[in-house]
Amino acid sequence: MDDEALLRRAIALARSRSAAGVNGPFGALVAQGAEVVGEGWNRVVELGDPTAHAEVLAIRAAAARLGTHVLSDCVLYASCEPCPMCLAASYWARIPRVVFAASKEDAAAAGFDDEAICAEMALGWGGRRTSGVQLLGAEGRAVLDAWRGNVRRVDY
Amino acid sequence: MDDEALLRRAIALARSRSAAGVNGPFGALVAQGAEVVGEGWNRVVELGDPTAHAEVLAIRAAAARLGTHVLSDCVLYASCEPCPMCLAASYWARIPRVVFAASKEDAAAAGFDDEAICAEMALGWGGRRTSGVQLLGAEGRAVLDAWRGNVRRVDY
Repeated sequence: MDDEALLRRAIALARSRSAAGVNGPFGALVAQGAEVVGEGWNRVVELGDPTAHAEVLAIRAAAARLGTHVLSDCVLYASCEPCPMCLAASYWARIPRVVFAASKEDAAAAGFDDEAICAEMALGWGGRRTSGVQLLGAEGRAVLDAWRGNVRRVDY
Repeated sequence: MDDEALLRRAIALARSRSAAGVNGPFGALVAQGAEVVGEGWNRVVELGDPTAHAEVLAIRAAAARLGTHVLSDCVLYASCEPCPMCLAASYWARIPRVVFAASKEDAAAAGFDDEAICAEMALGWGGRRTSGVQLLGAEGRAVLDAWRGNVRRVDY
């Protein structure tokens, strides 16, 4: 299956799963070569889970199916350009390629916050609408230092 | 409970849950006032789920407990500054305040990719190590347009 066929399947998921009005208009899938190994669609309202974006669910499904958190031989197809959460999730999954249809500007025009969150990410804490406070830095670092010194640690 | 006490609890989660070496050295919790409504720790390797970061799991637990994806009266406490995925998740959850201990620079020094992913987020697709391709833009936009025109839609 080629890129357009796989992307059309993600778009079809977005369309069909959002038709009732409960789920947001976003669909995604993860493919390993021509094989679809995980699918997802926006289920934030249905599940009451703010992280239940199409891409996150597709990545989680693919990882469960393949038995690994490393999806470095997979491609993410998304009906819309991934938001910062989903894009970062694709980095953590080591997905090297993303194919998308609508842009984040299109998402913003439809009332979704993607662009605003993108802009926030680029700021330091002082400029963000979310307030951020660092406390107990040394105690936090001590946990990371202990991890580095743990010979049993599983790097991931 | 004050900020330091709640943050110490997140740090303690990071320390205790990573001691065996399987889970990464990160802990988090979501508090509504003085009440802890969700906890999480890094379970990426244990669950084989690249999205199973401490903050994502704490946010998901809090949303499940409170029965809503909107956590606008909650605070996120994290043993380490949230990575872009987790920070964006906190935006989608409408969490207005984040308190953290170690910094993202500390995480990078311990071998985690947070800073590199932060840098990638700020770039356009042309500059990223992940390749991004937009195809079928009109078909993708059509789904968003249909959503905007759907009188049954649940805005979220």
